[in-house]
Amino acid sequence: MQEKLGRREFLKGIGTAGTVLAGAGLLAACAPNSSEQQYSLGTAADSSVEWTDETDILVVGSGFAALAAAIEVKQAGVDVKVIEKMPTLGGNSTINGGDLAAVGTKLQLEAGVSDSFELMQADMLKAGKNYNHVERVKTVVENSKAAVEWCESIGVEFTKLNFHGGHSVPRTNTTKNATGSDIVRAQIEKFEELGGEIQTETILKSIITNDSGRVIGIAGQKNYDINSGQGTPIYIKANKAVILATGGFSNDVQMRQIHEPRLTDALTSTNHAGATGEALREALKLGAMDVHMDWIQLGPWTSPDEPGFGYTPQFCERLVGHGLMVDPKTGKRFVNETGDRKVRADAMLSLGYSTLVIGDDVTVQRQVIPRILEGGMAAGVILKFDSLEALADNFSIPKEEFLAEVQRWNSFVEKGTDDDFAALIQTGATPTQTAPYYAAKLWPKVHHTMGGLVTNLKAQVLNQNLEPICGLYAAGEVTGGTHGAVRLGSCAVTDCIVFGRIAGQEAAKEQA
Amino acid sequence: MQEKLGRREFLKGIGTAGTVLAGAGLLAACAPNSSEQQYSLGTAADSSVEWTDETDILVVGSGFAALAAAIEVKQAGVDVKVIEKMPTLGGNSTINGGDLAAVGTKLQLEAGVSDSFELMQADMLKAGKNYNHVERVKTVVENSKAAVEWCESIGVEFTKLNFHGGHSVPRTNTTKNATGSDIVRAQIEKFEELGGEIQTETILKSIITNDSGRVIGIAGQKNYDINSGQGTPIYIKANKAVILATGGFSNDVQMRQIHEPRLTDALTSTNHAGATGEALREALKLGAMDVHMDWIQLGPWTSPDEPGFGYTPQFCERLVGHGLMVDPKTGKRFVNETGDRKVRADAMLSLGYSTLVIGDDVTVQRQVIPRILEGGMAAGVILKFDSLEALADNFSIPKEEFLAEVQRWNSFVEKGTDDDFAALIQTGATPTQTAPYYAAKLWPKVHHTMGGLVTNLKAQVLNQNLEPICGLYAAGEVTGGTHGAVRLGSCAVTDCIVFGRIAGQEAAKEQA
Repeated sequence: MQEKLGRREFLKGIGTAGTVLAGAGLLAACAPNSSEQQYSLGTAADSSVEWTDETDILVVGSGFAALAAAIEVKQAGVDVKVIEKMPTLGGNSTINGGDLAAVGTKLQLEAGVSDSFELMQADMLKAGKNYNHVERVKTVVENSKAAVEWCESIGVEFTKLNFHGGHSVPRTNTTKNATGSDIVRAQIEKFEELGGEIQTETILKSIITNDSGRVIGIAGQKNYDINSGQGTPIYIKANKAVILATGGFSNDVQMRQIHEPRLTDALTSTNHAGATGEALREALKLGAMDVHMDWIQLGPWTSPDEPGFGYTPQFCERLVGHGLMVDPKTGKRFVNETGDRKVRADAMLSLGYSTLVIGDDVTVQRQVIPRILEGGMAAGVILKFDSLEALADNFSIPKEEFLAEVQRWNSFVEKGTDDDFAALIQTGATPTQTAPYYAAKLWPKVHHTMGGLVTNLKAQVLNQNLEPICGLYAAGEVTGGTHGAVRLGSCAVTDCIVFGRIAGQEAAKEQA
Repeated sequence: MQEKLGRREFLKGIGTAGTVLAGAGLLAACAPNSSEQQYSLGTAADSSVEWTDETDILVVGSGFAALAAAIEVKQAGVDVKVIEKMPTLGGNSTINGGDLAAVGTKLQLEAGVSDSFELMQADMLKAGKNYNHVERVKTVVENSKAAVEWCESIGVEFTKLNFHGGHSVPRTNTTKNATGSDIVRAQIEKFEELGGEIQTETILKSIITNDSGRVIGIAGQKNYDINSGQGTPIYIKANKAVILATGGFSNDVQMRQIHEPRLTDALTSTNHAGATGEALREALKLGAMDVHMDWIQLGPWTSPDEPGFGYTPQFCERLVGHGLMVDPKTGKRFVNETGDRKVRADAMLSLGYSTLVIGDDVTVQRQVIPRILEGGMAAGVILKFDSLEALADNFSIPKEEFLAEVQRWNSFVEKGTDDDFAALIQTGATPTQTAPYYAAKLWPKVHHTMGGLVTNLKAQVLNQNLEPICGLYAAGEVTGGTHGAVRLGSCAVTDCIVFGRIAGQEAAKEQA
């Protein structure tokens, strides 16, 4: 039985949430302030702002989504300006792995992989615990091949098809240099070729609306210094729209602690220093709606002994299902090493101190890329020991318990079944018994914020009445809904390119 | 290694999130609009509103939290007005179970139960998956005994100490009539005795701020009809503060689908019809911060065949660990019957159709309260069958598989261990083998929204800069953070009374 609901007048006739998020039919293109809000959200008139700069469309940020939007706007023949608060371009996109999940690409066809929209959608919804906004996932999936081809059309080379955990088939297209910088560089070149310019060290401080609630520009600072927080005030008028593509808030300790209190400053982040979410908060101050802010992805494969992403993840991830992880205080395993990111990170947070991932010589030589092993050892984060006893001594592990646990683990590897934590023993795994032994410390880092602004399928930012805020668009990690509770690896780049392009195309159609 | 963060100027010096939420020291009492916001959040001046009514403190809502706040305000000698949008008073509080978790109460002492603040806090954090705002939990726990005594001081009788799942010890104080109406009735009597008045059918439509961002009143409607959404406009001036105690949004299908897309209109709710979250959204439009909006608790013990809470929960919950639950399409069990609410509701949502809970005569007569059994049978939601075969026929269950599954379940009951789903076989459980057999359909209903407004320990609503919004307070289910991811049974009433009282006390201190 459906209860009779006393709905607000202005929510009447909107239809299902799916319809709202699809940006479909029944609504006006975007929402002026309703008369009910007249006393609470009146805003300064356009005429009261002394603009220092003007453009048709202002793009805030310079990562995958921002540049995809900016290129689309430019190609539509519309004036665009891009601002980036950091001194360098690209934000997290340049330090990203350059992996783009897509269905039906050339690399998949060459590899004879059978894939479908339905399969990728199901994989994303499963990882996302069905919190994902389904129509949004569908849009990403159905435009994923076009996203790869769009990247190729501006000069990106995808040289390898990879398999990422959680996907049903190999569908990850990896760039030649295996980082996102290949994509960002091609995007910048294309944008500049079209005559576009990007202004660095320029931060958005607040979003300016006119008296009917339409976004008409921003207040910001140029020559902005991220360390001092100082800069010169500017006011940029945007005749058509402002597009937010400013990334997540992994590096804002206060903000993430509101949503997930355990993520104190005892945890650092794999992100660039600028991932602090100010623009997201400015949109929320305008009455935008946020979603899934408490789903914050931790990388369980990072070392506390190196900054950022570092070498350890690619050491650790090649060892899972081959080597073991150990709690140094007990000498025993503490988690399913092949469990998902959340299972492993939660186990580590519960312990509250660094753990260890361990591999013997046979396993490490077979599994770990030489560049990573050498780099990690040179950086002092991967350590080598002549014996398990020496390893135990170094980390003050109770020796007897530890040696017994390694024997126990080896028995699981030999029979192919882990009786203790149900880890998946990988094909070809061998017992941990040949010196030298390698170990790295593990302590989670904040990696990705799944939550963010609620937008419709036109990339318009929605307010608390689920109406688009006139003139405000968003794409990329600053938005929420695509990944639901847990982001599947290599789907973020696809989301950024797909919705970045849509934001640019749709914003370009706005009336000035 | 902690990354260097370029923090916004106005976030500097705030300290940890814990400090902010504690409402401690470093900040001004509340936050005027910062100069950065001058172009985006200017508001109509006080003088432009034609007030139709005036009070010092306006309390919105009439449940546990609202009335606790109103009584405190009145006792402080400050003028207060209470408005309630529904024609009846008390909202969900009157249909609540009247259970108040507390440490060190008279009933606990009489029963010789050893309990502590630390233990209750640990129980709440465990249930909440550590998403809880810890200082907030601490406040609830440390004031829980005082909350019980406060209720007693206004005439509430707690007659029984109950044990609720997830608590380490019995600490639930249950009212004489085992519903929250005992508390609401006493609160109303006390408030009226103090000369207070409550205006029903009066809805908040928007919150009014002055040009410095201070809340100064509300726009609303009197003679409001929840079915038509129509009423007569009113503007109530609040010289000191507005206190929101308006409950959750379990009955707003669109809003809950944004945060948890599976919660479509295929799910009804145990809540009263007014639980639709408008006031929460109005606060968010002012730039308030929300938290944990996607943690929405489902009751896995409800029947699709009766409205609201109904009889089935108290039939189902007395059978778990004694009887079995069955998927009617397969005739087999599908979940750990003694698993937590989320485990069970998720399993049911995954199936996508109603399941069954079954008990035999011995079990039902021993476990189920006669009033519930008789009421449920009269309502047609608990059905009685002469044999398991007849039960299978009625629900079109594959008979052979079902009979085999009941035998299998009985073997688990006899040995005291469930090999299939690790359900906890309760002490005294007996095999399901004696006719007549009883069954009820189960399909989850939306029960509680854990998320809501972020407030500090003074019950002040915080904005996106984590500063209090001047003149705006909130308490009860409209707030988030106390329960984290999952609310532990009987802790909501404690939260409402504790923070309702705090909101009233703190708001009364505001300067007019």
